[in-house]
Amino acid sequence: MVSYKLTYFQSRGLAEVSRQLFHLADVQFENHVVDRDEFLRLKPSLPFGQVPLLTVDGVEIPQSLAVARYLARKFGFAGKTAEEEAIVDALGDQFKDFYKEIHDYFYAKLGIIDVQVNEDTHLIPARNNFLTILTNFLQKSQSEFLVDSGLTYADLIIIDNMTTLIGWYPDYLDGFDKIQKWRASVLNFPKLKEYLEKRPLTPA
Amino acid sequence: MVSYKLTYFQSRGLAEVSRQLFHLADVQFENHVVDRDEFLRLKPSLPFGQVPLLTVDGVEIPQSLAVARYLARKFGFAGKTAEEEAIVDALGDQFKDFYKEIHDYFYAKLGIIDVQVNEDTHLIPARNNFLTILTNFLQKSQSEFLVDSGLTYADLIIIDNMTTLIGWYPDYLDGFDKIQKWRASVLNFPKLKEYLEKRPLTPA
Repeated sequence: MVSYKLTYFQSRGLAEVSRQLFHLADVQFENHVVDRDEFLRLKPSLPFGQVPLLTVDGVEIPQSLAVARYLARKFGFAGKTAEEEAIVDALGDQFKDFYKEIHDYFYAKLGIIDVQVNEDTHLIPARNNFLTILTNFLQKSQSEFLVDSGLTYADLIIIDNMTTLIGWYPDYLDGFDKIQKWRASVLNFPKLKEYLEKRPLTPA
Repeated sequence: MVSYKLTYFQSRGLAEVSRQLFHLADVQFENHVVDRDEFLRLKPSLPFGQVPLLTVDGVEIPQSLAVARYLARKFGFAGKTAEEEAIVDALGDQFKDFYKEIHDYFYAKLGIIDVQVNEDTHLIPARNNFLTILTNFLQKSQSEFLVDSGLTYADLIIIDNMTTLIGWYPDYLDGFDKIQKWRASVLNFPKLKEYLEKRPLTPA
């Protein structure tokens, strides 16, 4: 049996999509939760000095999107054809760009950086661009999800991050009806719903 | 026969690794070069409003890393096992983080943003971190490249970007002997060398 260990903080953050993928696939893994002190102790030995880190039978895989993509491919949540896989990857990369764009808002809200932020300046312009792009994909999709063949890691990662944003700014989805409907489809995906009802509540 | 069209500016930038992959694999593609005006005309019809865009028999794939990964997987430059593929992806994502970190330096040097930058502040700290990580991978690798099985798109994308940085700052690799040796191995990879000797010279 393959041995999986996922090292990250208690928060959902950059590892939650991978935890969700394990649960969707009914695959056991060691959920190695570290606090700040243990992270700093481990840091010099981490391939990129960062978490999340997935260890697969001793092989270390860093970077959240690479980890999620690896698990999604194994478990069947990465798209069905080579071209669809590439489009799912592109949506993941576009999410990464969006996340960098709202970096100041996100990390100020987490209390990690000390910057004055407000939604109008630091969130809404990036949101408008990103959710408009996603709406176009949803309009063309033959499933309830971003791509035709069904739920993928791109849906999971974007929707989980959205949960955090809505927690800080409840009007986040106002005016984005297609996105609201999509979010409900993801959150009600039976195996995911079952997991979300059990997981510890964390703000991010 | 599959029809490929790659849309991007004349520059190497975010599309060069994909052009190189076509050449390494001896696969024909339409190198659709756009200028600023044509890009702005196309922009509303692009899936993410951005280039590069790869079109494969009419299917549109945006995002430079997603495009490079798609071609690398097809052509055998993405790693040999699922775990090695994930590590190659992680190196690509780490490059993306590095590229964001040096964003101000890069775009100021290109003349796209008007910010005062200098190497000591805007390049060297990010360089030191990134090249130290890569040196660790090279030390462990059983090939001349970042991963054991040989040349991948992660080598190509990082080395091509390095060519641009060295053009602006010739001392960029001082003190990084392993990186210099690796760079020579990539640039002398026979099929790549042949391509680099023919391609139009561009500063970035």
